[in-house]
Amino acid sequence: MSPNDAFISAPAEIQTPSGDIPADQPSWNKQRPSQMPHDRYLSFAQEVEEVELPDRTWPDKKITSAPQWCAVDLRDGNQALIDPMSPERKRRMFELLVKMGYKEIEVGFPSASQTDFDFVREIIEKDMIPDDVTIQVLVQAREHLIRRTFEACAGAKNVIVHFYNSTSRLQRRVVFRKDKPEIKKLATDAAELIKSIAPDYPDTNWRWQYSPESFTGTEREFALEVCDAVVDIMEATPENPMIINLPSTVEMITPNIYADQIEWMHRNFAKRDSIILSLHPHNDRGEGVAAAELGYLAGADRIEGCLFGNGERTGNVDLITLGLNMLTQGVDPQIDFSNINKIRETVEYCNQLRVPERHPYGGELVFTAFSGSHQDAVNKGLDAMAAQVKPGADSTEVTWEELRETTWEVPYLPIDPKDVGRSYEAVIRVNSQSGKGGVAYIMKTDHGIDLPKAMQPEFSAVVQNITDSQGGEVNSKNMWDIFAAEYLDVEEPLEQVSVRVKNAETEDENATVVAEVVYKGERQVLEGVGNGPIAAYANALEKIGVDVEVQNYSQQSRAAGDDAEAACYIHAAVDGALVWGVGIAGSTTYASFKAITSAVNRAADM
Amino acid sequence: MSPNDAFISAPAEIQTPSGDIPADQPSWNKQRPSQMPHDRYLSFAQEVEEVELPDRTWPDKKITSAPQWCAVDLRDGNQALIDPMSPERKRRMFELLVKMGYKEIEVGFPSASQTDFDFVREIIEKDMIPDDVTIQVLVQAREHLIRRTFEACAGAKNVIVHFYNSTSRLQRRVVFRKDKPEIKKLATDAAELIKSIAPDYPDTNWRWQYSPESFTGTEREFALEVCDAVVDIMEATPENPMIINLPSTVEMITPNIYADQIEWMHRNFAKRDSIILSLHPHNDRGEGVAAAELGYLAGADRIEGCLFGNGERTGNVDLITLGLNMLTQGVDPQIDFSNINKIRETVEYCNQLRVPERHPYGGELVFTAFSGSHQDAVNKGLDAMAAQVKPGADSTEVTWEELRETTWEVPYLPIDPKDVGRSYEAVIRVNSQSGKGGVAYIMKTDHGIDLPKAMQPEFSAVVQNITDSQGGEVNSKNMWDIFAAEYLDVEEPLEQVSVRVKNAETEDENATVVAEVVYKGERQVLEGVGNGPIAAYANALEKIGVDVEVQNYSQQSRAAGDDAEAACYIHAAVDGALVWGVGIAGSTTYASFKAITSAVNRAADM
Repeated sequence: MSPNDAFISAPAEIQTPSGDIPADQPSWNKQRPSQMPHDRYLSFAQEVEEVELPDRTWPDKKITSAPQWCAVDLRDGNQALIDPMSPERKRRMFELLVKMGYKEIEVGFPSASQTDFDFVREIIEKDMIPDDVTIQVLVQAREHLIRRTFEACAGAKNVIVHFYNSTSRLQRRVVFRKDKPEIKKLATDAAELIKSIAPDYPDTNWRWQYSPESFTGTEREFALEVCDAVVDIMEATPENPMIINLPSTVEMITPNIYADQIEWMHRNFAKRDSIILSLHPHNDRGEGVAAAELGYLAGADRIEGCLFGNGERTGNVDLITLGLNMLTQGVDPQIDFSNINKIRETVEYCNQLRVPERHPYGGELVFTAFSGSHQDAVNKGLDAMAAQVKPGADSTEVTWEELRETTWEVPYLPIDPKDVGRSYEAVIRVNSQSGKGGVAYIMKTDHGIDLPKAMQPEFSAVVQNITDSQGGEVNSKNMWDIFAAEYLDVEEPLEQVSVRVKNAETEDENATVVAEVVYKGERQVLEGVGNGPIAAYANALEKIGVDVEVQNYSQQSRAAGDDAEAACYIHAAVDGALVWGVGIAGSTTYASFKAITSAVNRAADM
Repeated sequence: MSPNDAFISAPAEIQTPSGDIPADQPSWNKQRPSQMPHDRYLSFAQEVEEVELPDRTWPDKKITSAPQWCAVDLRDGNQALIDPMSPERKRRMFELLVKMGYKEIEVGFPSASQTDFDFVREIIEKDMIPDDVTIQVLVQAREHLIRRTFEACAGAKNVIVHFYNSTSRLQRRVVFRKDKPEIKKLATDAAELIKSIAPDYPDTNWRWQYSPESFTGTEREFALEVCDAVVDIMEATPENPMIINLPSTVEMITPNIYADQIEWMHRNFAKRDSIILSLHPHNDRGEGVAAAELGYLAGADRIEGCLFGNGERTGNVDLITLGLNMLTQGVDPQIDFSNINKIRETVEYCNQLRVPERHPYGGELVFTAFSGSHQDAVNKGLDAMAAQVKPGADSTEVTWEELRETTWEVPYLPIDPKDVGRSYEAVIRVNSQSGKGGVAYIMKTDHGIDLPKAMQPEFSAVVQNITDSQGGEVNSKNMWDIFAAEYLDVEEPLEQVSVRVKNAETEDENATVVAEVVYKGERQVLEGVGNGPIAAYANALEKIGVDVEVQNYSQQSRAAGDDAEAACYIHAAVDGALVWGVGIAGSTTYASFKAITSAVNRAADM
């Protein structure tokens, strides 16, 4: 068998676990051992070391202010793209990051890529870097690369030179085949060299960052030893601290262990006050955000990541989720996210990768509630907020500016979509899983139809009947069509040609109406009398043998101003059958006639 | 301003943070306060309560066995789809979950949706539920819904009736407008009712699950009180425990707080031994996986989630990530993931949503390394593993079956892609960010070209020159084309028409070659002598004024067996210029002549 054949062998079929149920498993658990080769994998304690920190303090801490952010989209993010950014895409990303408020931006690996080198030169020479923004450049701990890096940055005002070498047990053994002193020497040699070259470029405010790459796979004592040695060589001081960046290069274990590692380092650095402690989490276990937050609680000052979590494999930690997570806890992220759609579009353009539908805060579906009970709760939460800013009001009777004055507390929506430039419109979408809340919400907000509470189950059942049989989502337009077909457009068996009110202006006198109708194909003129126009029309209909008893009646205007239409909702027993009818018309009286006609026709259809 | 206008107002432009730098901010941090309305948001302690658990034990624990899994794709997942599953899609999802080994599957909310009701009837009546699989159905705590739920499940062997009501501070206030005793009564009334109806269906093995929905927004003391009361009514015992499911319905805070909440409940239940403690995390802060893992450490027995993290908004916790995270720590997930591509295809079909490129374990790009240093390290890691199973071998000299016998320890790859049915092929992709490692890997694995180490920088520079100028990725086919154009296909100025070896069979005698060539357009026949064919051909070329000094020579076969071709690599000084030449031919001798010709032509082109 040639090696190549192994690479294209067909994957196994799914193999339903079928081992004997372990003896110590509780009887209610019927799961069986699988064929997955778990014996091939070492636990973190076996692969790296046991991390013991029983007196950890981070679980009792809280996040109360933003860290120093560093955006590495142009470097760690860019190197992970199928199609790396063109100079144009790089410029757009850089401008976006500056505009959002990031003050430290890793712009490339100029000694390793001509494209990166040229980009760094371009933003320096075209004066695109604001004075309060520091660019950061990555470089391996090797002399010719370091020299080239300084060349790339010549003329910039503020630069962080970020040098690194891998220190993990695994990489020492299989990649570098060096022992600990040799690995440490790679770092200290690079530090010496950088310190010796910097004076050749006196016009730049140089700062230093060292990463023991694959830190999480490194024994803490050794990582500490290397970092302390580098800090010594770079002569970092409390006034002029250097950055020590502790990457979770590959996420290896639960985020509490990363936090323990960070707190241990934080407590044991020889010169903690001369260090800016930085985190650089990846997301291989889907826990990058948690690792960043717990690591920050554990004593870090700074976090490196990418917008929407771009980066090698599963990505770097997502700066947008981290920032907005802080906002939802009342902490200013010091970054502007007020137009997340625009941020998303730019990032998608630059990375040529789509932001997934369920990505926190930015995904297409994250401000959407399909479930009826969720929709209902969202509406009630918005109404409660409205009532706080304007007593007695519901959410349609206040402006967003007014709502914004009060605390955001809405079930199922951890953030006000408007705070990130998204709209309430998308909150409610209706499908077969939705209940009356969602239907009522869309009818009200999109169509100005404020369905009486007692009528909502009826119309919701109409909608659900359609979604159950046809599947799919009912969008706002479809819902209107369903509503119109059900309540407004039926003219069988009763077509209302015209209804005239003869007198209904005084309190004492009964109203009389004259109605011209086509009933079961036959044109007729009917007259009826009642204590108001509705009763009079109902009375007129008795002449053709239709018995209408109005149980409930309500009316609303559909829009403000002169062009307002009236919508009338009537709950009536028509020949004994209880139905709702709806009429919409310019005149309130005419709307109520139409509502009765609607009820009559719907009853005939049942 | 009508309310509808507020919904369509244009989102704000990005506003670069411009407030005054806070006085307590260190001088190296240039970030400024933003306009984001952080004052609108309450911290978790303000919104719910302060969770204090200084003697928490979960951070010192480890995950050593799989929890009871419950897949809720057909319910919580389905209700969050733009296009809910058709009966056909539901069947496929159900069959997939069963096949993978899930033993508890929430199949719907039959009292709320006719589609769900019909599906439950179908899988029961068509006998699609294996005897060791328990279906779970959700129902609100209301009588007619509960009765309908029992009807839906009649005839099933094992059923978990999952009832719930929301208990959070916020929902009590804005949605239900009920006080704590009233909310508790909703739960206990439902429990009484369920207990009273169950005897009507004696053929089913009924189990019970209660969720204080929005548990994380509920004060712990109250959640405990409600749960304990329900457990009492349902007469749960250690032999017949009931499930208490504690949802993070909306993810509100860092996962360590969820773990504290879970541990507090775990320690304080009146009848802990009669409870199966279940987690149901969502992902609003991007920390659902961490919440599940830390909550499991904190004392839970069971986790509810969806494949690839489908679910309302940002989704439910991802069962695939959780399962494979365990595998990478040497723990059997008791679920089969050996063909993750097939799982992904089925899930994408059922949900009609794409799994994102960077989704852990299943995403298109997660087993891809673009960066040169990562590619290099992956190769070295694979080689080190190969050497362990077969001393002296590299990764192309062992089969996957052989590699599988040893522990997986490869930098930048937390799991062997083959263990989930994916291939090494995709591991290495080459773009402008890649170095020689990736190039060498693809040439070797895809094209059988084992470039000499000393030659790798030269060809890598050729590739990088193209990616730097054209952008984009170089796929395997492109790379071959670049290689062939650079080394194999050039016939200017020297075209090698034929080369015949007159004698090279004995040790003592010199070799003589007769070469027919076209040089700068002129056909010539040259004869040369040397201590071997290569030297003889070089000597022949001197007749036309070309000086070739071979510095280095290596040869390999491209495939095993009779059809093997030889690839020859020659490093030579041609008229003083050092270049590599490559020749590929059926005969090893002829391949070396071609390699010399290649070197001559490349030198002329420099």
